[in-house]
Amino acid sequence: MIKVDLNSDLGESFGVYTLGMDNEVLKVITSANIACGMHAGDPRVMGKTVKIAIENKTALGAHPGYPDLQGFGRRNLAMSPAEVKDYVIYQIGALQAFASAYGEKLQHVKAHGAMYNMASKDYKLAFAIAEAVKTVNPKLILLALANSEMVRAAKDIGLRVAEEVFADRAYNPDGTLVARGTPGAMIEDKAIAVSRAVRMVTEGKVTAVNGEDIPIKADSICVHGDNPQAIAFVKEIRKALIEMDVTIEPLANFID
Amino acid sequence: MIKVDLNSDLGESFGVYTLGMDNEVLKVITSANIACGMHAGDPRVMGKTVKIAIENKTALGAHPGYPDLQGFGRRNLAMSPAEVKDYVIYQIGALQAFASAYGEKLQHVKAHGAMYNMASKDYKLAFAIAEAVKTVNPKLILLALANSEMVRAAKDIGLRVAEEVFADRAYNPDGTLVARGTPGAMIEDKAIAVSRAVRMVTEGKVTAVNGEDIPIKADSICVHGDNPQAIAFVKEIRKALIEMDVTIEPLANFID
Amino acid sequence: MIKVDLNSDLGESFGVYTLGMDNEVLKVITSANIACGMHAGDPRVMGKTVKIAIENKTALGAHPGYPDLQGFGRRNLAMSPAEVKDYVIYQIGALQAFASAYGEKLQHVKAHGAMYNMASKDYKLAFAIAEAVKTVNPKLILLALANSEMVRAAKDIGLRVAEEVFADRAYNPDGTLVARGTPGAMIEDKAIAVSRAVRMVTEGKVTAVNGEDIPIKADSICVHGDNPQAIAFVKEIRKALIEMDVTIEPLANFID
Amino acid sequence: MIKVDLNSDLGESFGVYTLGMDNEVLKVITSANIACGMHAGDPRVMGKTVKIAIENKTALGAHPGYPDLQGFGRRNLAMSPAEVKDYVIYQIGALQAFASAYGEKLQHVKAHGAMYNMASKDYKLAFAIAEAVKTVNPKLILLALANSEMVRAAKDIGLRVAEEVFADRAYNPDGTLVARGTPGAMIEDKAIAVSRAVRMVTEGKVTAVNGEDIPIKADSICVHGDNPQAIAFVKEIRKALIEMDVTIEPLANFID
Repeated sequence: MIKVDLNSDLGESFGVYTLGMDNEVLKVITSANIACGMHAGDPRVMGKTVKIAIENKTALGAHPGYPDLQGFGRRNLAMSPAEVKDYVIYQIGALQAFASAYGEKLQHVKAHGAMYNMASKDYKLAFAIAEAVKTVNPKLILLALANSEMVRAAKDIGLRVAEEVFADRAYNPDGTLVARGTPGAMIEDKAIAVSRAVRMVTEGKVTAVNGEDIPIKADSICVHGDNPQAIAFVKEIRKALIEMDVTIEPLANFID
Repeated sequence: MIKVDLNSDLGESFGVYTLGMDNEVLKVITSANIACGMHAGDPRVMGKTVKIAIENKTALGAHPGYPDLQGFGRRNLAMSPAEVKDYVIYQIGALQAFASAYGEKLQHVKAHGAMYNMASKDYKLAFAIAEAVKTVNPKLILLALANSEMVRAAKDIGLRVAEEVFADRAYNPDGTLVARGTPGAMIEDKAIAVSRAVRMVTEGKVTAVNGEDIPIKADSICVHGDNPQAIAFVKEIRKALIEMDVTIEPLANFID
Repeated sequence: MIKVDLNSDLGESFGVYTLGMDNEVLKVITSANIACGMHAGDPRVMGKTVKIAIENKTALGAHPGYPDLQGFGRRNLAMSPAEVKDYVIYQIGALQAFASAYGEKLQHVKAHGAMYNMASKDYKLAFAIAEAVKTVNPKLILLALANSEMVRAAKDIGLRVAEEVFADRAYNPDGTLVARGTPGAMIEDKAIAVSRAVRMVTEGKVTAVNGEDIPIKADSICVHGDNPQAIAFVKEIRKALIEMDVTIEPLANFID
Repeated sequence: MIKVDLNSDLGESFGVYTLGMDNEVLKVITSANIACGMHAGDPRVMGKTVKIAIENKTALGAHPGYPDLQGFGRRNLAMSPAEVKDYVIYQIGALQAFASAYGEKLQHVKAHGAMYNMASKDYKLAFAIAEAVKTVNPKLILLALANSEMVRAAKDIGLRVAEEVFADRAYNPDGTLVARGTPGAMIEDKAIAVSRAVRMVTEGKVTAVNGEDIPIKADSICVHGDNPQAIAFVKEIRKALIEMDVTIEPLANFID
C-alpha cells in the first residue's frame, strides 16, 4: 500500500498582517510546517496555528528560516553552519513549547526559503540543520528536498528523513530542481502537474527536463494555501492520488 | 538546615555586543536566568551560555522579557496577558531546546525587567506568566519577587514558586520593594546590604523603610555580574551566609 | 471660503505583507501619513508609497510610531521624551529622503497609534514630538488631535499645527475623544458621522456625549483606506463637504 | 600640497550595548562614518554621535549597512540592487535629520561591512548605492574602496567620489584588496603599515603582493577606534603623515 504526505507552510501571518488561508489548507494536508517567528510568524500566530492544526489532526512541524522578516526568509544570508545550527535549535524549541502547551509533540522540521535552498546544495549547512534537529529531539523527521544534500546529511547523522517533491517544478537529470527563473522551471499545466505528482508517488519516477525518466522518492508533496486556486489544486492532487489507491497520511505513520 | 539560592541574569550579550562577566559570576551563583533573544541574547549567545552554565553546574532558567532589544526589556510595553503568555511560552521553549541540546533540563523561569516589574503588581499578567510556565512544563519553578502578585498567581495555579529578595533594595511595610528613584530605595552601604540579606535568609525578616520588622521569604537572592565590584559583592554575601551555616544550593534542591 | 484637508495613513505594508488600499484612498484624500519603518512600512514600501502619493498630487507626511512592528505601534511603550524625540527625528529623516529622491518635500508629520494617543494627553511627550519636527524642519506642520496636548505643545514651540477630527468618534465635553471601548465611543450610523464631520468643518462645533455643543477646530478629517466600505465612506464625506461649498485641499494651502 | 582624510566608523553602540572609543577616535580623525540603525546604532546613539562629532569638528558621513544587527552587517545578504538603493536612501535620510537637528549637513556616505564588500565587486550594487546617494543629495561624496566598482559607478553617475585605502591590508596587482583569510592579507608589522599608508598618500603607489608597485589613489585612510592600540596606531599614522608635510583634512575640503 502506497502512502504519501501532503505538507504546506502555515502560520505565516505576523501581528496585524495576515497571510495564507490556513483554515482552508489545513483541511486538505496532513503535515503543517509552522513558521517560528524569524522569517514569519510571531508567538501569538504560532499559538493559534498549533491549535487549529491540532483541531484538524494535522501533524506539526517546525519551519525555521533566516531572521529576515522583511525578506520573508527568501534572501540568501551568509550565516555560518554554527549560526544556522543555533538558529534552528532556537526555532524548533519555540514551536515545540506551543505543541507542549496543547499536549502534542512535533513530527518534523522543514527549513524555509533561502535556508532550504542553500542547505539543499551545501552539505555543511545541511549537516548543521540535521545536527540541530537531532540535538533537540532525535525522533523528529527532517523533511527535505528529494535528492538534496539535506537528505544525505540526515542519513549520515542517523536522523529520519522524508523526501519532498514538487508537482509544479521541473527536475534536472540529476534529480535536483530546475532553478526558478530558468525557462521551463515551472510546470504551468495543472493537469500535467497533477499527473507528474501521482507518478512520482506511485512509480517513484519523474521525467526530467531532458526527457529522460529519473528515479525520485516522494514521501511528501509540497502544496500551497495562498489563494483559492492553490487550495483547489491541492484537492485535485488529493483526488488523483486517492483514485490510484494512494493513502494520504502524516509522515510519522510511514517514515522509518 | 537553612538553604538559599543565588541567582543572576546571564547571556545578555547580542551579536558583536558583549555584556556581563558571565564566566566570573557563574562561579559564585547557583541559578542562571538566561536571556531568550527578545530583550537580550541571541541563539549563538544562548547556546554558549547554556554550555558554560552546565560546565559550572549552575541550574538553568529561562529569562523571558519584552521584545525590546533597544530598551533591554526595561520599558513598560502594554502587551495583553494573552500576548505575554505566548511570548513567555516562546522564550521558554527556545531556551529549553538549548538545554536539551546539552542533555539538561530547565529548573526555573524568571521574568525580566519591565515584564517582571509589571507582573509583580498586576495579577492578570502574573497569572499569564504562571500559565505559560505551567503549560510548557508543570515541573518548572517560577522565580518571583517575594510578596508579589507573581507568587500569588503561581500558588493559585499550582506551580512551584521560589521567592526572591534583593540585598540592596529597601522594602515597604507591605513587603513590596520601594520604587527605584524614591529616596532610600537603594541600600548603599555594602555591609548593611550583606547583613540584611543574611537576616532575610536566616530569620525570614527584614526591616522596612518605616523601621518595622516584616516577614519575608528568601528562597533566592538576586545578584549581579556586570562588573568586578558586583562579583566581589556576591562573594561577600556568600561568605556571610556560609559563616551562618546557610547552604547555598540551586532552587530545585529545596523548593517543594 | 472654508477649507479642510482629508488625511489617511498609508504605506503600512511590510515585505511580503500587504495592508490597505493605498491606490484607492489616494484618489480621495489630500494628505498622506506615510509609515516610516518602525511600526509599519519598510524602505521599499516607503519609496513606492511616496511615488504614488506624488502621482496623485497628495501632500506627503511622515507618520512616525513606536518601534513595535508586531504590535503595529498600537501598544503603549514607556519611552522617555528624549527617546521619543530621537525616534521621531529618525523617522522624519528617513521619509524626507524618499521625498527628496522624487524632488518633493514633506508637508506634515503625524504621530501614529499609541504614540499619538499618549502624546495627546502627555505634554512632555507632545513637546518632544514638536521639538523633533521643528529641529528637522521648522516649516513642517504637526497634524495633531484637536484640543490635545500636541496642539498646545506645537503652539508653544512656534510650530504650525493642524487640528484633526474624527467623523466616527464621540467627543467628551472638554473636546477630547471618548476612549475606545467606552459605550458610545464610536458613531456607528454613517449618515450621522458624515453630518457631524460636515458640521465640525463648517460650524466649528460638535455635539459632545452629554448633548452639549462644544467648539472644535477641524483642519483635517482622519479617514481610512482599509477596505471598500472605508473608501465609500470617504466619498460620502467628500460629497457632503462639496455640497456645502467646502474646498478640500492639502494642509499647506491654508494652515498658517 | 598633499591632503588626505582619516575616516573611522562611529556610533556603533545600540541600546545598553556600547562599542568603540568614539570620544577618543574623534580627536584624531577628520571624517566620521556614523551607523544608521540597521547594522548598528539606534536613534539615541545617532543623535549623541552627531553631536560629539560636530563638537570635534569632524565631518559627518552616513554609514548605511544591511538590516542585520545580530550579524553587525557583516554577513552577505542577497538584496536586489533596488532594495539596496531604498535601504541606503532610508539610512542617509535618517542620519541627515540628526545633522539638520544640529544645524549641520552630511559630507559623505560610506557603505558598511558586507554591503561595502559586495558593492566593491558588483557594479549593479555599486550603481544602486551611488544612485541612492545622488538622489538624496547630489552634493554628497561617496567614500569608496580605491579601484573598486563603487568608484566606477560614482564616476559614471556624476557623483563626487573619494578613494579609500587601508594601511594594514595587502593589495592584489589589479589594485583590489587581498581577501581576508588569505595568507598575507593583513600587514601585521605596524611600522610597515604606517610607511605603506604614507607612500600611498604621498606617492600614489603601493607594493602589491607580487612585489610590483601599483598606482593607488589615497583620498582617505580607514582607521579604527575599537581599542587603545587602534587609537595609538592612528596617532602614528598622523605623525608620519605630518612629518611628510601632508595636511590631514576632511574630504569636502579637497574632493572635486
